[in-house]
Amino acid sequence: MGGSSGAVRVGLIGTKFMGRAHSNAWLNVSRFFDLPSAVAMHAVCGRDKVDTPKFAQRWGWANSMTDWRQLIADGQVNLIDVGTPNDVHAEQSIAALEAGKHVACEKPLAGTLAKARQMRDAARKAKKCQTFVWFNYRRCPAVALAHNLVAKGRLGRIYHVRAAYLQEWGGPDTPLVWRFKGDVAGSGAHGDLNAHIIDMARFIAGDEVTEVVGSIEETFIKQRVIPGEAGAANKGSAGKGGKKRMGRSTVDDAVLFLARFKGGAVASFEATRLATGNKNRNTIEINGECGALRFNFERMNELEFYDATSDATTRGWTTIMCTDAAKHPYAAAWWPDAHVLGYEHGFVNQAADIVRMLAGKKPEVPMPDFEDAYKTQCVLEAAIVSAREKRQVAISEFK
Amino acid sequence: MGGSSGAVRVGLIGTKFMGRAHSNAWLNVSRFFDLPSAVAMHAVCGRDKVDTPKFAQRWGWANSMTDWRQLIADGQVNLIDVGTPNDVHAEQSIAALEAGKHVACEKPLAGTLAKARQMRDAARKAKKCQTFVWFNYRRCPAVALAHNLVAKGRLGRIYHVRAAYLQEWGGPDTPLVWRFKGDVAGSGAHGDLNAHIIDMARFIAGDEVTEVVGSIEETFIKQRVIPGEAGAANKGSAGKGGKKRMGRSTVDDAVLFLARFKGGAVASFEATRLATGNKNRNTIEINGECGALRFNFERMNELEFYDATSDATTRGWTTIMCTDAAKHPYAAAWWPDAHVLGYEHGFVNQAADIVRMLAGKKPEVPMPDFEDAYKTQCVLEAAIVSAREKRQVAISEFK
Amino acid sequence: MGGSSGAVRVGLIGTKFMGRAHSNAWLNVSRFFDLPSAVAMHAVCGRDKVDTPKFAQRWGWANSMTDWRQLIADGQVNLIDVGTPNDVHAEQSIAALEAGKHVACEKPLAGTLAKARQMRDAARKAKKCQTFVWFNYRRCPAVALAHNLVAKGRLGRIYHVRAAYLQEWGGPDTPLVWRFKGDVAGSGAHGDLNAHIIDMARFIAGDEVTEVVGSIEETFIKQRVIPGEAGAANKGSAGKGGKKRMGRSTVDDAVLFLARFKGGAVASFEATRLATGNKNRNTIEINGECGALRFNFERMNELEFYDATSDATTRGWTTIMCTDAAKHPYAAAWWPDAHVLGYEHGFVNQAADIVRMLAGKKPEVPMPDFEDAYKTQCVLEAAIVSAREKRQVAISEFK
Amino acid sequence: MGGSSGAVRVGLIGTKFMGRAHSNAWLNVSRFFDLPSAVAMHAVCGRDKVDTPKFAQRWGWANSMTDWRQLIADGQVNLIDVGTPNDVHAEQSIAALEAGKHVACEKPLAGTLAKARQMRDAARKAKKCQTFVWFNYRRCPAVALAHNLVAKGRLGRIYHVRAAYLQEWGGPDTPLVWRFKGDVAGSGAHGDLNAHIIDMARFIAGDEVTEVVGSIEETFIKQRVIPGEAGAANKGSAGKGGKKRMGRSTVDDAVLFLARFKGGAVASFEATRLATGNKNRNTIEINGECGALRFNFERMNELEFYDATSDATTRGWTTIMCTDAAKHPYAAAWWPDAHVLGYEHGFVNQAADIVRMLAGKKPEVPMPDFEDAYKTQCVLEAAIVSAREKRQVAISEFK
Repeated sequence: MGGSSGAVRVGLIGTKFMGRAHSNAWLNVSRFFDLPSAVAMHAVCGRDKVDTPKFAQRWGWANSMTDWRQLIADGQVNLIDVGTPNDVHAEQSIAALEAGKHVACEKPLAGTLAKARQMRDAARKAKKCQTFVWFNYRRCPAVALAHNLVAKGRLGRIYHVRAAYLQEWGGPDTPLVWRFKGDVAGSGAHGDLNAHIIDMARFIAGDEVTEVVGSIEETFIKQRVIPGEAGAANKGSAGKGGKKRMGRSTVDDAVLFLARFKGGAVASFEATRLATGNKNRNTIEINGECGALRFNFERMNELEFYDATSDATTRGWTTIMCTDAAKHPYAAAWWPDAHVLGYEHGFVNQAADIVRMLAGKKPEVPMPDFEDAYKTQCVLEAAIVSAREKRQVAISEFK
Repeated sequence: MGGSSGAVRVGLIGTKFMGRAHSNAWLNVSRFFDLPSAVAMHAVCGRDKVDTPKFAQRWGWANSMTDWRQLIADGQVNLIDVGTPNDVHAEQSIAALEAGKHVACEKPLAGTLAKARQMRDAARKAKKCQTFVWFNYRRCPAVALAHNLVAKGRLGRIYHVRAAYLQEWGGPDTPLVWRFKGDVAGSGAHGDLNAHIIDMARFIAGDEVTEVVGSIEETFIKQRVIPGEAGAANKGSAGKGGKKRMGRSTVDDAVLFLARFKGGAVASFEATRLATGNKNRNTIEINGECGALRFNFERMNELEFYDATSDATTRGWTTIMCTDAAKHPYAAAWWPDAHVLGYEHGFVNQAADIVRMLAGKKPEVPMPDFEDAYKTQCVLEAAIVSAREKRQVAISEFK
Repeated sequence: MGGSSGAVRVGLIGTKFMGRAHSNAWLNVSRFFDLPSAVAMHAVCGRDKVDTPKFAQRWGWANSMTDWRQLIADGQVNLIDVGTPNDVHAEQSIAALEAGKHVACEKPLAGTLAKARQMRDAARKAKKCQTFVWFNYRRCPAVALAHNLVAKGRLGRIYHVRAAYLQEWGGPDTPLVWRFKGDVAGSGAHGDLNAHIIDMARFIAGDEVTEVVGSIEETFIKQRVIPGEAGAANKGSAGKGGKKRMGRSTVDDAVLFLARFKGGAVASFEATRLATGNKNRNTIEINGECGALRFNFERMNELEFYDATSDATTRGWTTIMCTDAAKHPYAAAWWPDAHVLGYEHGFVNQAADIVRMLAGKKPEVPMPDFEDAYKTQCVLEAAIVSAREKRQVAISEFK
Repeated sequence: MGGSSGAVRVGLIGTKFMGRAHSNAWLNVSRFFDLPSAVAMHAVCGRDKVDTPKFAQRWGWANSMTDWRQLIADGQVNLIDVGTPNDVHAEQSIAALEAGKHVACEKPLAGTLAKARQMRDAARKAKKCQTFVWFNYRRCPAVALAHNLVAKGRLGRIYHVRAAYLQEWGGPDTPLVWRFKGDVAGSGAHGDLNAHIIDMARFIAGDEVTEVVGSIEETFIKQRVIPGEAGAANKGSAGKGGKKRMGRSTVDDAVLFLARFKGGAVASFEATRLATGNKNRNTIEINGECGALRFNFERMNELEFYDATSDATTRGWTTIMCTDAAKHPYAAAWWPDAHVLGYEHGFVNQAADIVRMLAGKKPEVPMPDFEDAYKTQCVLEAAIVSAREKRQVAISEFK
């Protein structure tokens, strides 16, 4: 372990959306949770020499720097938190593991399966280091409860898994930002959103995908306005006397696929940035012999449960407000019943579990490490191969 | 009984909205229900000499006439169905009872308490006649199920009854039709809508109101355009060169009141035609020691039930689709599960129960007769007295 | 045309679930709609000599018989209504067309693509006859409104079609009734449920499927108890001293497939009898450049609409209660606003449109004839070929 | 002002539920908001000598103490945050104002009207001090948006205000904790919950209550188990060989009242701890001539809006996800669209507005000061007087 006993001393790489979400988690985790170790926000690393110190001050990081290798080399740090874009996860995580640090990496594990495999292999080698992946939705209390109910057998044999992550921000007026460039982003909605729901499906169902049966990879908007140029901000117009220049989007806008689980369930997955009307609808439904579950992140405090073994007179979908301190995962750390939680609470809950695991304790619900996240990456890969080669793809094709 | 043995031979008075709803009920009841007696649509009575025969032909009434006394005198008829405006319920019903006919009368029982009392007294006297009041929502399967759940003790001691019937059609552009004239209509939203929810609350809770604690009777729109005159149809304008003539609305647009039930529950009731956004939101919630119920007619196939005795891990509001033939009231007569029912089905269900009761059988759930409907009328009266005299009013003030 | 001028004189074949739904439609259509022609319920044909006359009497059919060829030969009948199982649709419909009758046939068009093609060809030949297919959900007002909104361009370019028809009655305790026998039923959930949502998707989107990209055909419950034998009713037990005998289910329990539309939309379809918790969830969502739509039959009076062109401050999913007589399809025929409709109203609405079309008038929204229903059948076929041959299947492979 | 220029230096009194909520607000406000002044968590004051320093350390308060007068005397503090029980609000707030400090006080303003009046008067006198009351729900983005829509005239003339705050935790098994003791708590659900919804109703409607028409004050559970004694935890039993001792609850479990607003709206208010099934249902609906609004805190990210001026074809209740950074109050400070917020965010938003106002800037939406909160207190008082004296009570009776 990289450092002396006791406190978890975090070094964060990344100061954008995820840098902010992780900073908030580390800042607040010790206020709400009673943890076995102290948490020190030791240092943050960003690329901008002006902004990074400001970010550090704002969020309470003791130090800041712009060279991530320097952060990894810092003997004070024992946990590297990787909150950067997908294409650098592998390099940074592997370096951290080789330096003997624990690593908490943003999802998806990597931009490509090859890099994800390198990360998994590095984690296998670094026997003293623990790895964690920020599949934050697992630690949304309703999702954790769903996992628990399935684990207790409340659904019985599972027939159907129906997962979709629907967003709408990728319309034709959205300019050609880096997220639409394949070389930087790796993929579009697929890595961003399908990664989440594949992980959620595996986590809740407690089962593994064995095969992708069919897949569609679609780029609806093939040309987008190059940002920063005339007209980019002028929806639908060519700007003042200028012409808006267009560039090619090289990522998917949507990926849909059908799959089979080892236990016999059939499944559908869909991720899209063009599902008009759905801002952040991360949703899953699972139907089993004894019951069923439904979750929609836009109403994240609620889990819908159907108990097929109850009296049919009063049977139906029950909306569970997952905020009961005595009964629901993570709820005791927060507020009284139905004083609802929000998006960032999943990150704080995950930070709590990371601290617990680093102290040798168990997390509240299972935590994905690099080994586990690699399995999700294989499903992502299988879906793309299926779409491009127009064939069924077994997960066992990947090692 | 007015007639020979066997068939129920119906004579209907009224050919407007309720005439249509009742005709549909009598036409369809024998198709869907297995009944102990045949139903004959013997005659319908309306005021218009041209329209009434057409109405009769359309709906399958064997005869038509325009004098309701003639209908009551008809020896072939053994059930008089009163589907007329409130101000003539008493005269027609009492005449029918005196002629030895059974009577099924539209709600509310009457336009005034005095007349309602006469009807109750006439029913008491006519010992061989049965009386029925078309509080149709009782026979909406979800409402009937609510009644059954309370009767089985699933709610335990009841704390709260919260009933509201919200409509929106009474805005300032709605002209001064007869419904806004007190001498014809008796009251506005109060008799029309509060009558329904007082009956529903009594029916589901299985308890009686003892006191109205406070009440508001409000006419928001005091002047309305006289229909048929220039400008009536020209929203907000005075028409071409003309002036729209305004007349005074002499009924309530809304009545709200607080009440107490004998069993200790506190209650609120509200009826309004100006609850913008709510087209026909007839809604009730009841909270008890062991559970709770919620119903909203706009989603009439669903009953929400909360079982406070169940495990808190999965406790919540359960949305019951009340269409299970084996378990839910009236459901076996209709379609497969979740092939949902609509507004008029409550009338058909009630017609079935009337036929059963006339054959000496029990209805599926309790049926309001004139005696019972008089109790609802007393609550209506108490609310108005409370609003006008600005005081608490005990139901026992009325006999 | 088979008969004299004027009235539509219906001859119905079928006395089970659909026989009942169609009878109700013919009985009530003239009560609620003002039609250009009278409707005569001339005769019904069933297989049982005892039950068929009873059925006729119950529903008001003037005559009954047990030989459907006799019905078709009846010169009084000008419309044959085919409400029988899928495997006899072709024979009966073709005979009727050859006899010069108009034909209204239950969906799906046929049990096999070959038979469906024969029906289409017969319809092409019978130039004086009109054909109709009972895809009843088209005439649910909310679905018809959805069609109209898309037709008016309110969604713009369509990106996604997401359709699922979820039922739950096919659990392991359900015995091996005819619906699980492939030789009788043709298919399981696929022909029963996917037929509906393929038609709905085509109808609402106003577009045609060009390709099935991938498909899963799954029989979760491979062995079922043979009904009528010991233990069939004893859930999970072998009965008293007896052994329950099991037989093989030879139909799908669920079929899921991904598809592409001509206009560029990507689509998912799913039909299942094992989606625990979902009794009759016929649901579709369509996302387009300018807006989106959502429908769920279990709340059939509501259409959810998202107008992406409206001010973002108040933008969101709007729940439209589709009961406004002045604005919504079919609503004027029924009750006041938000006096909601049920399952069978779609059939009555379709009966009204059939009568209108037979009189040379236009239906309220487009009506599927055999030509049109054949296109739906091709998509059904493509999904099965895709699942069995594990490949993408173009609809153009079928003629 | 108590202190030098620049930073807001907070001294908090209270370390329980509200102490925690306020600490979280002060800790996080500068991370999410760009504020005109720095915020210093200077000191916290609690009653327990052991727990208070721990609390200070946990939440990042620089100092801790147990004598609130010492805190008020501290020259470093310029804002006293009163997070204590209602019965000490007046004494602490007045002392702070007299010491020249700004005061942010928890709601309700005080336990009695007399004390609230003293606070208001003290605030009037302390001309250099600003006062704030933590009616946190105003700063829930959906509630703030509701306020803005009414302010823009989107509802037109308001007819109905329907507010209810429903909780369920006060069942017969809940022991006689301090919240059920009138001398400590002042009132039960009334001061706790009605205070919130009276403030919300005034805030959103932009109007003042003029009269309470009728009111019910009810204590359903008159005797409760004295906590800490044998049997308190044994639901319904007397414990092993012991007898549970009961004590009298001296607060209301529920208060319902009807009221009128100056602008002509009629209103109902209800607060209860015995609305089984409702954990934290703080809900309001307002119906106006041009539109309507609905809010339910359990789905706090959503506001339902009905625009009665839109085309009836697509009119309905629109569910607005109030998380659009460009359009919705406070949203820009937090996460991307539909990355939803939780309970405590309202406190953070309020802290931001307090900091802004102390720097002479405007808050995002109007902030209640002691003057304003006194108006809410008058309505609370009127409801109690109405219930006890069984009469209508004008707000003008109170000065």
